[in-house]
Amino acid sequence: MDVITIGESMVLFTPQSPGPLRFANTFEKKLGGAESNMAIALSRLGHQTGWISRLGDDEFGLYVRNIIRGEGVDTSRVIFDKSSQTAVFFKGMNPGGDPNIYYYRRKSAASNLSPDDIDEDYVAKAKYIHLTGITPALSLTCRNTIYHVLHVAKKNRQTVVFDPNIRLKLWSKQEAGHVLQDIAKQSDIVLSGIDEGQLLTGKDTPEDIANNLLQGKAHTVVIKLGDKGALLAKEGYQQYVPGMKVNHVVDTAGAGDGFAAGFLSGCLRGYDDIQSVELANQIGAHALSVSGDVEGYPYWSQLTSNGENILR
Amino acid sequence: MDVITIGESMVLFTPQSPGPLRFANTFEKKLGGAESNMAIALSRLGHQTGWISRLGDDEFGLYVRNIIRGEGVDTSRVIFDKSSQTAVFFKGMNPGGDPNIYYYRRKSAASNLSPDDIDEDYVAKAKYIHLTGITPALSLTCRNTIYHVLHVAKKNRQTVVFDPNIRLKLWSKQEAGHVLQDIAKQSDIVLSGIDEGQLLTGKDTPEDIANNLLQGKAHTVVIKLGDKGALLAKEGYQQYVPGMKVNHVVDTAGAGDGFAAGFLSGCLRGYDDIQSVELANQIGAHALSVSGDVEGYPYWSQLTSNGENILR
Amino acid sequence: MDVITIGESMVLFTPQSPGPLRFANTFEKKLGGAESNMAIALSRLGHQTGWISRLGDDEFGLYVRNIIRGEGVDTSRVIFDKSSQTAVFFKGMNPGGDPNIYYYRRKSAASNLSPDDIDEDYVAKAKYIHLTGITPALSLTCRNTIYHVLHVAKKNRQTVVFDPNIRLKLWSKQEAGHVLQDIAKQSDIVLSGIDEGQLLTGKDTPEDIANNLLQGKAHTVVIKLGDKGALLAKEGYQQYVPGMKVNHVVDTAGAGDGFAAGFLSGCLRGYDDIQSVELANQIGAHALSVSGDVEGYPYWSQLTSNGENILR
Amino acid sequence: MDVITIGESMVLFTPQSPGPLRFANTFEKKLGGAESNMAIALSRLGHQTGWISRLGDDEFGLYVRNIIRGEGVDTSRVIFDKSSQTAVFFKGMNPGGDPNIYYYRRKSAASNLSPDDIDEDYVAKAKYIHLTGITPALSLTCRNTIYHVLHVAKKNRQTVVFDPNIRLKLWSKQEAGHVLQDIAKQSDIVLSGIDEGQLLTGKDTPEDIANNLLQGKAHTVVIKLGDKGALLAKEGYQQYVPGMKVNHVVDTAGAGDGFAAGFLSGCLRGYDDIQSVELANQIGAHALSVSGDVEGYPYWSQLTSNGENILR
Amino acid sequence: MDVITIGESMVLFTPQSPGPLRFANTFEKKLGGAESNMAIALSRLGHQTGWISRLGDDEFGLYVRNIIRGEGVDTSRVIFDKSSQTAVFFKGMNPGGDPNIYYYRRKSAASNLSPDDIDEDYVAKAKYIHLTGITPALSLTCRNTIYHVLHVAKKNRQTVVFDPNIRLKLWSKQEAGHVLQDIAKQSDIVLSGIDEGQLLTGKDTPEDIANNLLQGKAHTVVIKLGDKGALLAKEGYQQYVPGMKVNHVVDTAGAGDGFAAGFLSGCLRGYDDIQSVELANQIGAHALSVSGDVEGYPYWSQLTSNGENILR
Amino acid sequence: MDVITIGESMVLFTPQSPGPLRFANTFEKKLGGAESNMAIALSRLGHQTGWISRLGDDEFGLYVRNIIRGEGVDTSRVIFDKSSQTAVFFKGMNPGGDPNIYYYRRKSAASNLSPDDIDEDYVAKAKYIHLTGITPALSLTCRNTIYHVLHVAKKNRQTVVFDPNIRLKLWSKQEAGHVLQDIAKQSDIVLSGIDEGQLLTGKDTPEDIANNLLQGKAHTVVIKLGDKGALLAKEGYQQYVPGMKVNHVVDTAGAGDGFAAGFLSGCLRGYDDIQSVELANQIGAHALSVSGDVEGYPYWSQLTSNGENILR
Repeated sequence: MDVITIGESMVLFTPQSPGPLRFANTFEKKLGGAESNMAIALSRLGHQTGWISRLGDDEFGLYVRNIIRGEGVDTSRVIFDKSSQTAVFFKGMNPGGDPNIYYYRRKSAASNLSPDDIDEDYVAKAKYIHLTGITPALSLTCRNTIYHVLHVAKKNRQTVVFDPNIRLKLWSKQEAGHVLQDIAKQSDIVLSGIDEGQLLTGKDTPEDIANNLLQGKAHTVVIKLGDKGALLAKEGYQQYVPGMKVNHVVDTAGAGDGFAAGFLSGCLRGYDDIQSVELANQIGAHALSVSGDVEGYPYWSQLTSNGENILR
Repeated sequence: MDVITIGESMVLFTPQSPGPLRFANTFEKKLGGAESNMAIALSRLGHQTGWISRLGDDEFGLYVRNIIRGEGVDTSRVIFDKSSQTAVFFKGMNPGGDPNIYYYRRKSAASNLSPDDIDEDYVAKAKYIHLTGITPALSLTCRNTIYHVLHVAKKNRQTVVFDPNIRLKLWSKQEAGHVLQDIAKQSDIVLSGIDEGQLLTGKDTPEDIANNLLQGKAHTVVIKLGDKGALLAKEGYQQYVPGMKVNHVVDTAGAGDGFAAGFLSGCLRGYDDIQSVELANQIGAHALSVSGDVEGYPYWSQLTSNGENILR
Repeated sequence: MDVITIGESMVLFTPQSPGPLRFANTFEKKLGGAESNMAIALSRLGHQTGWISRLGDDEFGLYVRNIIRGEGVDTSRVIFDKSSQTAVFFKGMNPGGDPNIYYYRRKSAASNLSPDDIDEDYVAKAKYIHLTGITPALSLTCRNTIYHVLHVAKKNRQTVVFDPNIRLKLWSKQEAGHVLQDIAKQSDIVLSGIDEGQLLTGKDTPEDIANNLLQGKAHTVVIKLGDKGALLAKEGYQQYVPGMKVNHVVDTAGAGDGFAAGFLSGCLRGYDDIQSVELANQIGAHALSVSGDVEGYPYWSQLTSNGENILR
Repeated sequence: MDVITIGESMVLFTPQSPGPLRFANTFEKKLGGAESNMAIALSRLGHQTGWISRLGDDEFGLYVRNIIRGEGVDTSRVIFDKSSQTAVFFKGMNPGGDPNIYYYRRKSAASNLSPDDIDEDYVAKAKYIHLTGITPALSLTCRNTIYHVLHVAKKNRQTVVFDPNIRLKLWSKQEAGHVLQDIAKQSDIVLSGIDEGQLLTGKDTPEDIANNLLQGKAHTVVIKLGDKGALLAKEGYQQYVPGMKVNHVVDTAGAGDGFAAGFLSGCLRGYDDIQSVELANQIGAHALSVSGDVEGYPYWSQLTSNGENILR
Repeated sequence: MDVITIGESMVLFTPQSPGPLRFANTFEKKLGGAESNMAIALSRLGHQTGWISRLGDDEFGLYVRNIIRGEGVDTSRVIFDKSSQTAVFFKGMNPGGDPNIYYYRRKSAASNLSPDDIDEDYVAKAKYIHLTGITPALSLTCRNTIYHVLHVAKKNRQTVVFDPNIRLKLWSKQEAGHVLQDIAKQSDIVLSGIDEGQLLTGKDTPEDIANNLLQGKAHTVVIKLGDKGALLAKEGYQQYVPGMKVNHVVDTAGAGDGFAAGFLSGCLRGYDDIQSVELANQIGAHALSVSGDVEGYPYWSQLTSNGENILR
Repeated sequence: MDVITIGESMVLFTPQSPGPLRFANTFEKKLGGAESNMAIALSRLGHQTGWISRLGDDEFGLYVRNIIRGEGVDTSRVIFDKSSQTAVFFKGMNPGGDPNIYYYRRKSAASNLSPDDIDEDYVAKAKYIHLTGITPALSLTCRNTIYHVLHVAKKNRQTVVFDPNIRLKLWSKQEAGHVLQDIAKQSDIVLSGIDEGQLLTGKDTPEDIANNLLQGKAHTVVIKLGDKGALLAKEGYQQYVPGMKVNHVVDTAGAGDGFAAGFLSGCLRGYDDIQSVELANQIGAHALSVSGDVEGYPYWSQLTSNGENILR
């Protein structure tokens, strides 16, 4: 197993046309969830990936499991929870305004995740452990689960990759900052947006944020800067890596998760850090040009056959 | 004001084609909620109706309020709750099996309803108060609200109509039975299905159920018997009223709420009880022949212009 | 009552994809009508509004009434006309060309509006009377109705706001110019586009048009100049008020009606004229960014919560 | 040319799901019109057919012309009328009730048809002239056109087939009865439903209706009796021809027009009258099993290849 | 591995409404293929199943692989063929007539299957080998592949289950009869419809067909008799097993494949033959009540939780 | 007859939303085919056009024939082929990438076209013969058919217009180059894109390509240069003709065919060559602004009524 990730996936309902949600008559059913997005992107790039979660023992749970399994991600450790439902959410696009996003994930099946759900032997086989800042916001048992996984990873000397993914609909800035700083300090690689980094560190510039994050366990920090690319930072070393131009941005959802998958794919292929960030930029850019979270992630064969500038 | 009702309305999502929900790609947005169904049916029949509830301060809350207000129901006492969301639910039709129904109403805006939300002056103006057994199942504050309304109605000598509408997804049989018996005993008119009546009274036959329910405050009990019509029971009097034939039943949702509206319309028009049950049967039958909860309720002008057998 | 308006609303059918209408397979049903647009926009901004009209006693009439009533507009004076149908129209978008617009409103229910339909007591309660140049084009009885309302308003010293809304599909330039000049001269506030103003006055520049219009009863004239904002003119005073930038114009329909609603909302709130034109620009801009006539009008709470620059 | 017909075709809008039209969100665009239905059915059966009409010089007119021309019907005499629009209508299915049908054909392009539009040389080439009772109801010029065509047919000794198709939304019973009796008397073949026959003749039974209609010019009368088949009547001869069983009737629209086409096809093939009625029954039955007016009419090759019992 | 199957899966396009395909405007994309149907049904019943095939190296190939993999079927031996495309087919429902079915599978990727594609070690691990009569009709290399698998199965003493699934659009009756008789004689279990059995054996009655098929290697023959159930035949033993009643048959596609899956599930669970046929009937019946090939197959937990009469 | 063309038309399925085809749930049915595109565009411009082809004797064949016939193109020489199917293809739009195009035309009905299908008398009546480089790529009999038509045209001194339309999915560059050079040399007018011209001639610049092509029989060569317009070349004469500006290019499909139609329309109207190229540019530009191959081609009346700069 190359990478294991843990988190909640939901059924996403999006209206068939933009505008305020109350005027939408028909909605399409899709998949949403940062961790499964990352796992799917990695699987398309040719890596063995596992996703650990709980789903409701219901039609939506089967849907989510089958879609993710169909993408080649190992779902053998997914638990169907008879006591709670699979979460759903709605997302409406408002031209010239913020999207309407409504979560229905309170007391969801995934919020029941607990340390006992973690099969240590399974986790121990992965080269990388991918965690986000969403899971610890879902419930106390979820938070304990993440700490338990950090403990397992430490015991087995595995590399932990952390993507803060701060969701202020789920908890307060203060609580998020406190917990996520703590997790970031115990992670080996941190991939953070600029806003998230400010909340995590209290610093303003990419350089200062990166330096702050490097004071924990992390040996590598990448600050994502949107269309400007990313800042790669290691102890005593900082380097800007320019982004890819995307002519027509259709949907930013899933871009950050694709970035993480691209970076991890680079690591797994033995790329150097700069090359891994370049690949991360590339996968993130693909996600931007297609509607939906996962629809835009490329297969490895597509990257190479299109003559794109992949390094080796 | 003729009738005031209190309860939760939700956004209903139904797939555009039958079959297991996990295979449905597109869903339509509709309105669901027993109490607002009843209020809409009554409004179409020409009566002044008010609906009291809480909705989320969100797109779905505006949708629900505007649809109900558009049907002519007074929504001036609806509160938009900034702390919670409007509930949603999903319903999938399985030919040859039970429908898939998934509620996302936990901690919804309506579950925050409390006695303080009740404007006594407003309630006191209604001739009839309509209550269902759903509201007291939503939360403790909702239950207290129902008891408070019973108190207000008693104080003002208003007629309380109770429709048990037992939802075993919301509470246990035992808890439901305990609370709803208590409410039934404080109601003046009870309209109950046969299964509900058995749970409420422990009796088996329509006659025994009705007799049991008449031992409380109720002066009139109607036991709904589906296509067989209904049993009308008053103290020392029982009479079967045959149902209307419906050639092609499309959707049973909303039929019970239409029955209640028809019965109340009869009462408001000064019909005798038999005639009111006949009108109840008729409105319920209309609901059966159209997909959706409220789409099938007729306008009073439609009933009379089609030459249907309305009594006067 | 804050504002009363009078006019025809229709069912609008728009194809689900752009291109010539003959290739469109599916159409969506929506609401159209300048006066009800204005009333809906005003209602969302928190004002009491009434809409007077005739509708066919048919499914489309019920649809139009319920949608408008659902938006909080008073429809108690709407008459369902058994002798005529509710009007419909079709609108197809042609990229790089004019839209196809086909009206089916000849001898519609609304064209039967007559002075007798006007409840003087009802009209007399409004602070403002809103009229457009569409209604007098529908029929002779409609034209008489508008003159009758002008008379009532004068008698009751009410403020008349006039939006010419010239529709050359309904009458000739000559006839339109003649009638609308006459109405403009009897109005207190005139809100006119530049093309309309040229037809009304024979003048070319915003300044000259405004001056000409101020020679009637009007004390305030606003010339709408699209993305350049508007010219506010009072006797001996002219001031340009810049427009709001809209990044992506989706649909211009409904923008003028939103402008009128914004201006009236400013007046009702006691804004000064400049501030009212700014609010008018703002509401008009919202309409531009969403498909459909009324879908883009904001609620007052949305304006203030988004931190937009509302004056007080 | 085998058959020429004259009449109005319209764009038909039908909702994608059944129920009251006001709840339908999306509508499909189709073709409607009794005379073009008949012409299309005949064309599929292998005959040369021409359709004379006026259409608006608009997108809907092009749509109607192209669909009919695409079915192989000659449309060379269709006039695009710059002064009026192509008519539209809406049809909603109500399970357990009458359909909602709303016409928007007042002052339509087709209502401008006048005797001058008739190219006598063109009409004179047809073996049969097909007329319905709809066209004379559209306008006075339309009525004159029908009389003019009767005159042309008489002059050229052509056979006129008349299908009353009474539309009481277009005129009164009295006016319809008066005009259509007159046309029936000048026709050679009359194909009438039982209700229509009663209105035309004042008689009650199929036999009496047929006898009455045979007192005019007609040598052949067929009374259509739905699933019971039809009564064939000639002077001194009456014979019942049983209908075809249709297991699942989906849509009755277009069945009568298919009946006329089947009968004419039999005549053109030299079938005897009984055989022609059998073919009429068969084509009518095909129309019943498919949604839409023309979708169900078979090609001649389909009739024969399916092993259906065609006579020769 | 419990069962391995080999065959072609295609993308199925079905119109959103019934009627002749030429009038359908929109089509839905689904999965079709007898062997993958069977594998999916078995997987839902809790068994380890593998599907061997070739797919085009294209979007449709990815779709087919991911759907099947998502259902839990092992697709590790599926080959993406760069030289050919994934097959597609269209199916339109004609009420009261045969469906329109059009295959576009000529020279498809699956038709390139050849003996070299068979991983003997993989095949040898399965308890049962499932073959249909479709694969040998696709191409000569496909036919050789089936014979090669028969040879492998024989070598490894595996049980071969054969479902003739005769497709006369792919080859002649004569060629089909010749090849499929030969395969049937080398199979251990034969599951055949009555028409297929007649073509295979030249016999007429279920009993005679079964006896004839038992003269080959087969120790068990089941003749499927639709709603009448099935005839189970072993040497010297024949027993009718009644079918399950299905109130509303929606779609017969996939029922035969579900029957095979049910029978194999019974065998794998150690049921006796009668019980296995009963389970086969049950799974087939589920397929009938839902539109689509695979949508109706139940999960094992659904069978038991619904209180259906499963034997142990 | 003004122009006769020969080639394959197919049913085109396009997804209702952009993105990779495997995620598309619903597809729309349209028409595709370079030669019928050209014929339809010419017919709308007012010219008599005939299209020769073979279609499957199936629903899709009827669809294609009826659509083309409905556009006014003569289809009397289209043959319905009982042995083969109508071809289909799928086209998915990938924002920021090449479209997915999958043809299913192998051994299609049109690929059975042979010289015997050509009615010489019919062909001989046309002023122009339009050929593309697609047809000779379909099969050997198709290639022979094109050579046969060249022979017929030569015999009858008809003008042959050749549009290479190179499809490298159908044959190799080498084979295409060899055959198409040969056809180009026997044509009177060659309309070629720049890439096509390079493949045909081995030259790089428009000027060199044109000079090379003028060395065959051609008296006129036009090199299409996209939004830069076109190079008109005759012996000893070369002239650039600027293109029309298109603000928002929606779909480039059909633009080249529209260019050919515009050029031929100019020739038929007696325009000089420059004017004909201008008209060609104009028709091509119309195609760009509408989705679909043929939806954007204008009627002649639309060109003139919109006040576009048509030369006379």
